[in-house]
Amino acid sequence: MSGLKEIASNKSFGGYQKVFSHDSTSLKCNMKFGLYLPPDCDTNKVPVIYWLSGLTCTEQNFMTKAGAQKYASKYNVILVMPDTSPRGVNIPGEDDSYDFGSGAGFYVNATQEPWKSHYHMYTYVTSELPEIINSNFPADPDRQSIMGHSMGGHGALISFLKNPGKYKSVSAFAAICNPSESSWGQRALSGYLGDDKTLWAQYDATKLVSNYNGPPNDIFLDQGSSDEFLEKGQLNPQKFVSACKEAQVPVILTMRDGYDHSYFYIATFIEEHFKHHAKYLGISSS
Amino acid sequence: MSGLKEIASNKSFGGYQKVFSHDSTSLKCNMKFGLYLPPDCDTNKVPVIYWLSGLTCTEQNFMTKAGAQKYASKYNVILVMPDTSPRGVNIPGEDDSYDFGSGAGFYVNATQEPWKSHYHMYTYVTSELPEIINSNFPADPDRQSIMGHSMGGHGALISFLKNPGKYKSVSAFAAICNPSESSWGQRALSGYLGDDKTLWAQYDATKLVSNYNGPPNDIFLDQGSSDEFLEKGQLNPQKFVSACKEAQVPVILTMRDGYDHSYFYIATFIEEHFKHHAKYLGISSS
Repeated sequence: MSGLKEIASNKSFGGYQKVFSHDSTSLKCNMKFGLYLPPDCDTNKVPVIYWLSGLTCTEQNFMTKAGAQKYASKYNVILVMPDTSPRGVNIPGEDDSYDFGSGAGFYVNATQEPWKSHYHMYTYVTSELPEIINSNFPADPDRQSIMGHSMGGHGALISFLKNPGKYKSVSAFAAICNPSESSWGQRALSGYLGDDKTLWAQYDATKLVSNYNGPPNDIFLDQGSSDEFLEKGQLNPQKFVSACKEAQVPVILTMRDGYDHSYFYIATFIEEHFKHHAKYLGISSS
Repeated sequence: MSGLKEIASNKSFGGYQKVFSHDSTSLKCNMKFGLYLPPDCDTNKVPVIYWLSGLTCTEQNFMTKAGAQKYASKYNVILVMPDTSPRGVNIPGEDDSYDFGSGAGFYVNATQEPWKSHYHMYTYVTSELPEIINSNFPADPDRQSIMGHSMGGHGALISFLKNPGKYKSVSAFAAICNPSESSWGQRALSGYLGDDKTLWAQYDATKLVSNYNGPPNDIFLDQGSSDEFLEKGQLNPQKFVSACKEAQVPVILTMRDGYDHSYFYIATFIEEHFKHHAKYLGISSS
């Protein structure tokens, strides 16, 4: 048992926006996650969408800023919003940078000291957390999808590509699509995984897609045209699209004129992402 | 000139969510406010809705948590989101309490030392800020409405009742409807206005409504049934409704089963408030 404990609950769009804490076995620390339970899940098992957040975020950002509960309620899906790194594990330097350590787990399983004892966010979001959700809430384990933003867009893409069929669909806002070629990614991958670039490739969507052999499925990539991190070469959606085309994996890249990297951008387009996932999860709006 | 300066701008639902700073003459300090400019206001003057926030809030809370930009865009209105008190004016004790001083201006004009030199939030939100908005942005000065939450619901109600015809409509979430009879209100009114209860009555919606002689207009009061501050007697919507009935002023009190005092509650029902204001502002959705 994970010591699952409800620490907040607010009625929202007919359902409940909750926060839970639990002791994570993969991260060896106490973690929090946000959970939206839609109105109809008292009596039925419903699909689940995982949201992975970006650098500096906690479980709070998406649940307070994206306006997603409206659509989770409308489409009758559970929404799971994990934190972005282990917390309070007292690794020297973990709080020194916004883009490495706490708030920046990068959804990998670290192999390097001192990170490897706790920083296993890949296992946490793709295995441990789904097991907790499926065994404690009315979630249909056969209907789950994943989406995210920036570092969490990277997390969503690699989770989808590394586990063919596990997630019915994937979408991402302003994803770090090719971390091996961005300074954020290079810092994280070298810090958590060391210098072996074959290991980096296992967490790089643009590299992973060439070996993807799962069900055909439109990967939905959303990108603001005025995103400062696009301009700085951190995101590289075009490289991912090229790799998808080469591998004959269907991808949709939707550019949003004048939008930036913020939650104001995410909130504007989150409804379209729910529509995308609803199609693959086989649900119509209530 | 007020030294109006744009300090943030993010594209949102086709328009722009901005933050401005300026030197306030009524508050004698530098202030920030949030402003949403909908897509169509480049070429046309559009209606304006003022949002007044509650205790502890700044200009940020509503603009990041309520999901209101979607509806401001849909109904093509400018949204103005002021801060809740003077800032940085160095009055001893101003930061000591969450419910008095900074973050808690209570939308009154203080008459008591040491507050009276700066704490004039009533003049700020009903006169100074509308003048700035009307002279710097494509706002139609003949079509403005007001809404708010908690302390800001009180602010919206008194601004509407004290200025017949100035605001086309008013709505409030979980408003402090009868501050003379709530502990939050008593602390604020005695602190800012002293012991003269005839002065308190000039800032108490339940007292003001008996003298209201403006255009007939449904006052829209929204209240969660599980709001802890309702239970604690801070809000008193029923007293306001009784006073409205006695004064023959139309009022709608909508109770929301199971909802609390949070922004999750506000976000759930904000669309209905826009519909209410749109009716009185004479606009249909785009």
